[in-house]
Amino acid sequence: MRTSARNCFPGKLVVIKKGPILAELEIAVGEQTSLVAHIAFTSLVDLGLSVGSAVQVLIKASQVVLLTEDHSVRLGTRNLFCGTVSALHPGAIHTEVILQIEKELPIVAVVTNESAKELELQVGERICAAFPPSSVLLTLNS
Amino acid sequence: MRTSARNCFPGKLVVIKKGPILAELEIAVGEQTSLVAHIAFTSLVDLGLSVGSAVQVLIKASQVVLLTEDHSVRLGTRNLFCGTVSALHPGAIHTEVILQIEKELPIVAVVTNESAKELELQVGERICAAFPPSSVLLTLNS
Amino acid sequence: MRTSARNCFPGKLVVIKKGPILAELEIAVGEQTSLVAHIAFTSLVDLGLSVGSAVQVLIKASQVVLLTEDHSVRLGTRNLFCGTVSALHPGAIHTEVILQIEKELPIVAVVTNESAKELELQVGERICAAFPPSSVLLTLNS
Repeated sequence: MRTSARNCFPGKLVVIKKGPILAELEIAVGEQTSLVAHIAFTSLVDLGLSVGSAVQVLIKASQVVLLTEDHSVRLGTRNLFCGTVSALHPGAIHTEVILQIEKELPIVAVVTNESAKELELQVGERICAAFPPSSVLLTLNS
Repeated sequence: MRTSARNCFPGKLVVIKKGPILAELEIAVGEQTSLVAHIAFTSLVDLGLSVGSAVQVLIKASQVVLLTEDHSVRLGTRNLFCGTVSALHPGAIHTEVILQIEKELPIVAVVTNESAKELELQVGERICAAFPPSSVLLTLNS
Repeated sequence: MRTSARNCFPGKLVVIKKGPILAELEIAVGEQTSLVAHIAFTSLVDLGLSVGSAVQVLIKASQVVLLTEDHSVRLGTRNLFCGTVSALHPGAIHTEVILQIEKELPIVAVVTNESAKELELQVGERICAAFPPSSVLLTLNS
């Protein structure tokens, strides 16, 4: 399967929390990195997901917000990942930003050129990426 | 009402499932197609929605992820719709993709030109569209 | 902290409703304006949020849908804000739209140029902005 989602990581389910409508999944996507996804509870059941299941995590680059690192600020989602800018691909209006979280774990974000300038994005600089748990899509090889 | 959302379909509520914060709605948007929306439970009550209600479904094209069809892969949302590419509108950075799900049901997605190339998008080819239930907005004529 | 999110408002928590997976927060962001955010319940606890907490609200401009004002139409989210277009920044494909909700409360949306034309967007005209509660990110100064 190929996808238009710029972020597509293999992961392993480590925690499942069930609600009436949603399920909250914690998914390990790197040696030291896990993220949180909210999917419909019915989808959890349909897919037969359980702790240990291998999944693919899909996140559109346009869903990712960039933030400067600031230890006095806390974020209202656990999906906050700080790393080093490894590449910048500026276009006419938007810039694609690649952020290395771990050696094998890049996160891709798309921001306006105005934002790229305000954040003073440069290769080698530290920056953080955040996205809401509801923006994560999952696929499973059956 | 006119809207910037590229996807705007008439639909009919077929299933309502209530949770403490969210309501999950199944909405028929074509003869053989229904989608899942998560809205705040309070909004369900405010709008007086019930099974059979006629609604408009709004989904931004930028929320839609494209995936190649692969019967060995299952997706963690029921909002997966496969069809035929009926039009491609390439721009400098992004391509607008129109995907015919049923005769009267197009889905519009916006992907980067790089993604369009990787997915080998061509008019007449099959492709699938997916979006999370939380990205669906609803309107109701009162 | 600086961010790529074009919408970044200070706000104050006025209502908290707790579910098993999500918490629904009502946040006052203007004298007469409040919005609804859905965050993970665990994040509510992690941040120690309570009624009266001062937060920053972050919403990506690409998450915002524009709608013409139509009093016969009701929206399936409380996050509907009507105001006057104060600026339009057209690009090759997208237009950035700035919408004044209150004197000190602008909302920024990004729509395709095609949508901008269909909505007949002009400085001084009224228009409404909507976004799902799940697209709101929060930060808190600790």
